[in-house]
Amino acid sequence: MSVLPQSVEKVINEFSKLPGVGPKTAARMAYHYIRSPNHDAKKLSEALSHMDENVVFCKKCFNISEEEICDICSSPLRKKSKLCVVEEPLDVIAFENSAVYDGLYFVLGGVISPAEGISAEDLRFKDLKKRVNEILGEIEKERLEIIVATNPSLEGEASASYISDMFKKEVKEGTIEITRLAMGLPTGADLEYADRLTLKRALEGRKSI
Amino acid sequence: MSVLPQSVEKVINEFSKLPGVGPKTAARMAYHYIRSPNHDAKKLSEALSHMDENVVFCKKCFNISEEEICDICSSPLRKKSKLCVVEEPLDVIAFENSAVYDGLYFVLGGVISPAEGISAEDLRFKDLKKRVNEILGEIEKERLEIIVATNPSLEGEASASYISDMFKKEVKEGTIEITRLAMGLPTGADLEYADRLTLKRALEGRKSI
Repeated sequence: MSVLPQSVEKVINEFSKLPGVGPKTAARMAYHYIRSPNHDAKKLSEALSHMDENVVFCKKCFNISEEEICDICSSPLRKKSKLCVVEEPLDVIAFENSAVYDGLYFVLGGVISPAEGISAEDLRFKDLKKRVNEILGEIEKERLEIIVATNPSLEGEASASYISDMFKKEVKEGTIEITRLAMGLPTGADLEYADRLTLKRALEGRKSI
Repeated sequence: MSVLPQSVEKVINEFSKLPGVGPKTAARMAYHYIRSPNHDAKKLSEALSHMDENVVFCKKCFNISEEEICDICSSPLRKKSKLCVVEEPLDVIAFENSAVYDGLYFVLGGVISPAEGISAEDLRFKDLKKRVNEILGEIEKERLEIIVATNPSLEGEASASYISDMFKKEVKEGTIEITRLAMGLPTGADLEYADRLTLKRALEGRKSI
């Protein structure tokens, strides 16, 4: 006999599908909603259902959006000559929240990872090619900079190389320039705790002051 | 301008209300549901709404239930002469999952914690008194054992003392016996890492073998 009401069991089961959430955490989450005095469960339920019905992927950059074309892709204020390629929508949010970038984005949907069985075909490289050609047509004689902003992991590096191979011809012709985010020590880091690769990259990328 | 669609922002906002979930984790959770191919958001939404409408607290033990009186309280197989007092419904689940107990439960709803502004009045001590009298009436001449199973924390101990004070008279009369869960080293523990209090309790509670 299970001591849990079926309706609670179901919520726990759904929460358990979240990455990094085990059955105990899921139970604690469900219990939080049971105990909440102001019908938070109902509120979350409605918010989720609304999100499920309204959120789509932008047809140009594949970021999450409530429109066919997202606010960024349709904004006349964004520079079309810069295309920042990221792994996931959350990366777009990180850039936007820091307000340091005024170009366009393209969301790959992940990175090449043989260990997890994710090959180039599973990602949006073909869509990226298409989008790049579209932009090249729009900016005419300007040069397009593709900023590869995949994570500084082995997989992120592999995907960056893949992109750079994809546009070899265009780079030679000078219509495209491919850049990669700088690597080094993050602000506030403690040198003592920096890993070997970060130190190596920080040293390689050193600048005169 | 927020880069996030409003419907996503709302889900993140709701998830952020969970204890221990910050805005970044909440965003990752929301994004998981956006990306999920099989409408997990819809499933969770429905499960939550169903739970919100169906789950109540048992009128006798205050455990979560879909009936007025929960399965445990209404089961003829459970011993009425044992009442295990726990802090939260999750503690009942822990006992039930380990199948080591055949008595009844009572869920206090927390523990006395001056630091968090939780006093005895905020908990179900009055309901406990009522429930105990009810059981005493039902078991007639049998002695009722109240097993205090609050957590082995300062607050849990304070609540245990409170309960033991509440039933001083009945204990003297011999109608009630109050016990506390044993304390000591947990199975699989490493002595080296045990804290002082645990070691002290383990030593005090030592048994001949």
